[in-house]
Amino acid sequence: MRILGVDPGLRVTGYGVIEIAKNFLLGQDIELVEAGIIRTDQRSGIAARLARIHDALAEVIGEFRPDVLAIEKLYAHYKHPATAILMGHARGVVCLLSGTQKVPLVNIASTHIKKAVTGHGHAGKLQIQRMVQHYLSLKNLPGPPDAADALAIALSYAFSINKR
Amino acid sequence: MRILGVDPGLRVTGYGVIEIAKNFLLGQDIELVEAGIIRTDQRSGIAARLARIHDALAEVIGEFRPDVLAIEKLYAHYKHPATAILMGHARGVVCLLSGTQKVPLVNIASTHIKKAVTGHGHAGKLQIQRMVQHYLSLKNLPGPPDAADALAIALSYAFSINKR
Repeated sequence: MRILGVDPGLRVTGYGVIEIAKNFLLGQDIELVEAGIIRTDQRSGIAARLARIHDALAEVIGEFRPDVLAIEKLYAHYKHPATAILMGHARGVVCLLSGTQKVPLVNIASTHIKKAVTGHGHAGKLQIQRMVQHYLSLKNLPGPPDAADALAIALSYAFSINKR
Repeated sequence: MRILGVDPGLRVTGYGVIEIAKNFLLGQDIELVEAGIIRTDQRSGIAARLARIHDALAEVIGEFRPDVLAIEKLYAHYKHPATAILMGHARGVVCLLSGTQKVPLVNIASTHIKKAVTGHGHAGKLQIQRMVQHYLSLKNLPGPPDAADALAIALSYAFSINKR
């Protein structure tokens, strides 16, 4: 099974594709397929930036054919509502792609992602990167952080299947 | 010139297309081309709902070929941030279409829309509907409200061109 994790942002959208064996065990049979970021030009208008995210992510989906698209669930209280609304624009484009490309969408709570990957709900960026490195048996710390976050989202979905 | 005004919402997205003559005068030579709403099924997932908005609005753009797509500018303080983030998802899809369909996007401040159409910045829904009816010489009050709001956005852009 292929899982595409996406961490949407208007400036930087991270993505990560992992492959898990059908009856995989925790920490086994998980493979990194691809990870990266989509960066948009801040001098461009929002329409062009969203089109960039859309087209780049459509390409990722087309190339790696994930079975599921995992994103972080919305939470009620954002520190910066204005930024959250703009993030919502990027997230909307990601959700749209799930609909138009027929890749089922799964929402995973942020605390659940951190807990699933690092063992507790308030892990920092570096801790998440280290755990992603561990589970995917990577030689180096995965980066940039937005790509690592996307991989963490994909991993936490993998772990949630494993538990069922 | 054809102006497409859009009032994005996850539940209901209003749209309205107007046509203005090249050197039109206020209250003259403005014609209603089309207006309506795109309603999504609340029982569907967000991906399907955004795909519905995307496909329906793409059809409107394809059929009526607007020269510009006008939407309300984001403002800093929303009463309900969570709802605003979801609106952001729908608004993101609308902005995306501007990018992918190459229809230039214009943002108009909410208070400017109300002021341009009704003369002051805090007009109610009914007042906006009445003024849209007046400027477009409609027999009946335009509706539903989301379609009237979309027409008000298109009209206020028309008036702003007129002023220049």
